[in-house]
Formats: sequence, structure tokens, C-alpha cells
Amino acid sequence: MDALLSKQAEITDAALRAIAYMPTRSLPALVDRDFVAGLTDEHLMRIAVLLAEKSYQEGGCPIGAVIVDHNTGQIAGKGHNTLVQANDPYNHGETSAIRDAGRIDFSATTLYTSLSPCDVCATLIYMRGFRRVVVGDVTNAAGNEAFLKEKGIELDILEDRLGIDLYARFRAENPDQDMEDWQGLAALHKRLDS
Amino acid sequence: MDALLSKQAEITDAALRAIAYMPTRSLPALVDRDFVAGLTDEHLMRIAVLLAEKSYQEGGCPIGAVIVDHNTGQIAGKGHNTLVQANDPYNHGETSAIRDAGRIDFSATTLYTSLSPCDVCATLIYMRGFRRVVVGDVTNAAGNEAFLKEKGIELDILEDRLGIDLYARFRAENPDQDMEDWQGLAALHKRLDS
Repeated sequence: MDALLSKQAEITDAALRAIAYMPTRSLPALVDRDFVAGLTDEHLMRIAVLLAEKSYQEGGCPIGAVIVDHNTGQIAGKGHNTLVQANDPYNHGETSAIRDAGRIDFSATTLYTSLSPCDVCATLIYMRGFRRVVVGDVTNAAGNEAFLKEKGIELDILEDRLGIDLYARFRAENPDQDMEDWQGLAALHKRLDS
Repeated sequence: MDALLSKQAEITDAALRAIAYMPTRSLPALVDRDFVAGLTDEHLMRIAVLLAEKSYQEGGCPIGAVIVDHNTGQIAGKGHNTLVQANDPYNHGETSAIRDAGRIDFSATTLYTSLSPCDVCATLIYMRGFRRVVVGDVTNAAGNEAFLKEKGIELDILEDRLGIDLYARFRAENPDQDMEDWQGLAALHKRLDS
């Protein structure tokens, strides 16, 4: 079967964006396995950022994540924040990708997240036994990198300028939504009242 | 409009089970507001347990939760674990009820959970600013009650024998599923290998 993205296809943002938007279960039919297996950490982080961009364009919070299986080099799950899109008080980029991956063993996977994980996601990452986490933005948020390392998870910071600029723009445009997503409406109302 | 469950209806397990199964958004049309507002902590915990029973009957993990709004006395959200039903590595009773409630301020709500919350849910409960949590089973699991109290959340333990017995039966019948739901497949595989 000829894949839309062949083994030799050029690795452009357009190609990575197509992977971001395609359903994970359809990737094997649409993208050559060797193309996916040849993606670097930078490329995979860019897919997470393009998922964040997708969410931003939908009026949501621009945070995306991708999970890669070490054994196959293939994408096991991916997704973006759906606070707005699904009216969900807690479906962050990380949880979205984890739900997309389903009931797999995460001990041989890497999670690429466009933004430093919140306390809940950091706890979930640890409780689900991820091997490695790559964080694409410790400029707009940070703090749980040390916690994850203490828990024995390999942690790399690989900042992506596109993602950092996008998140900074979102926060400037919509500080309330940013805070609701991170700490909940209770904290936001408390801040607005004070 | 006549409600199926009137203000004077008897509070039986059958009535509470009906509330557990009815869509939260339909409750105002099906159940008199005064009937719901008249439910005690014990009744609301029983609804959480009957949601756990529903999940068990579906082959899932028997953990349920209910969120009640202090201002109205009405149910704002409810749900049960969907590890099996939704192939979701992390949708516990608490998260299910939170997703059902949607983007509300949880600072004037109580969360009733049939089982003591895991580390991820305890962190989420704190990060979403819940006022009060009632735990229905600290026999089969426990540990985060002190953490929640330290975070300023009112914490009550109100054990429900039906829920405790149901969870103990599930764990005896399906210890692997129990462990996967709590600590993930990675931890389960590690245990099976050792």
C-alpha cells in the first residue's frame, strides 16, 4: 500500500501537521513506518506543538502531546488540551494523548509535551510509569521537572520556539482561560474577587 | 411538570439507582428538586456506590463518584471508572464525575467517592479547589485523606458496606485489573515479571 507520506518524503511542518491531525489509528495506512521511525526528538516535539496550534485555532488552550513507542518508533497516542472543546475541567495535552494511546504499558514510551506538566499530569505520568518525558516549554511554566527526575523518569528539555511564542500569545490574550485550565475556576474566581 | 420521583417519594435503593443511571442533565426533568435536596450524605454516597455497581456489571472497575452543589443541593456531576469501558488508562470515578460536571467552580461542592482517591485524583481534587470530600471506603484503599486535609479540604469518611464488599469482591476476582487501574500496566507487568 502506498502511503501518502513515503519513506523518502521531506520532513516539513506541513508533513508534521498532517500527522498531528490524522487519527492515530490511521497513521499506519497514511504514513510510511520508516518515515515515522526516522523522526527526531525535535520533529516529534514539533508535532506536539502543531497539536497545540490546532487547539488554539479551535479556541482552546494551546497544549499538545505525543507518545512514542520505543520498540516500534511509532506514535502510540497524541492529543491536545480540550478544556474548551469538550467542556472538560481536566483534559490536558498529556491526558489527551494518554487516553488516545489507551491501555498500553507506558514503560517503553516517551511523552513529548509542548508545555511543562502541571501537578496532576506529573503525578499521572509517574503513576503510569513513563520511561521518558521531553518538555517543550519551561519558559511559560515549569516546576515538575525535578519531581519527575526524582521519580526515576528520564527528563529532557527541548524548547520549541513556535510553541513558546504561541503559549505566550494565548496567555496574553486569555489569562483567565489559562488560569482556569491550570488551577480551576475556583482559583480564578478567588483571584478575580481579590 | 410531574417528576418520576416526586418530593414525597420513598428513598429506596431503587430510587437512588435510578438517579445513578439517569443522565445528570436530565435529572431536573425526572426527579423533584426537593427530593434531591433532601438526600443525606449516606444517600449520596449510596448513589456513588450504585454507580460503582453499574461499572462492575459492565466488566469495569467498581468505583463511582457524585458531585453535589452546596448552593442548590443538586447533583452537578456523577460517573464511574471507565478503564475497561472506554479503554482509558486514567478515568477514575472522580475524574468521570468532574468531566460530567464540566467547567464549574468546585469551591462550593462536595465530592462523594466510593473509594479513597489515588494520588492523581487527590492532586486533581486539590487543584480544582473542592470544598469537601466524602470517602466511602478506606478499608480497601487509603492514604490521601491526610494530604487532602493538609490542603484545607474538609474530609469525611463515611464507609458504605455495600461499596466495601463490592470492591473487595472485584479485587479478589480481578487483582490485575485493580492494579492496572491504580498504578498502570507498567507496574502490573513489573509485578508479574518478579
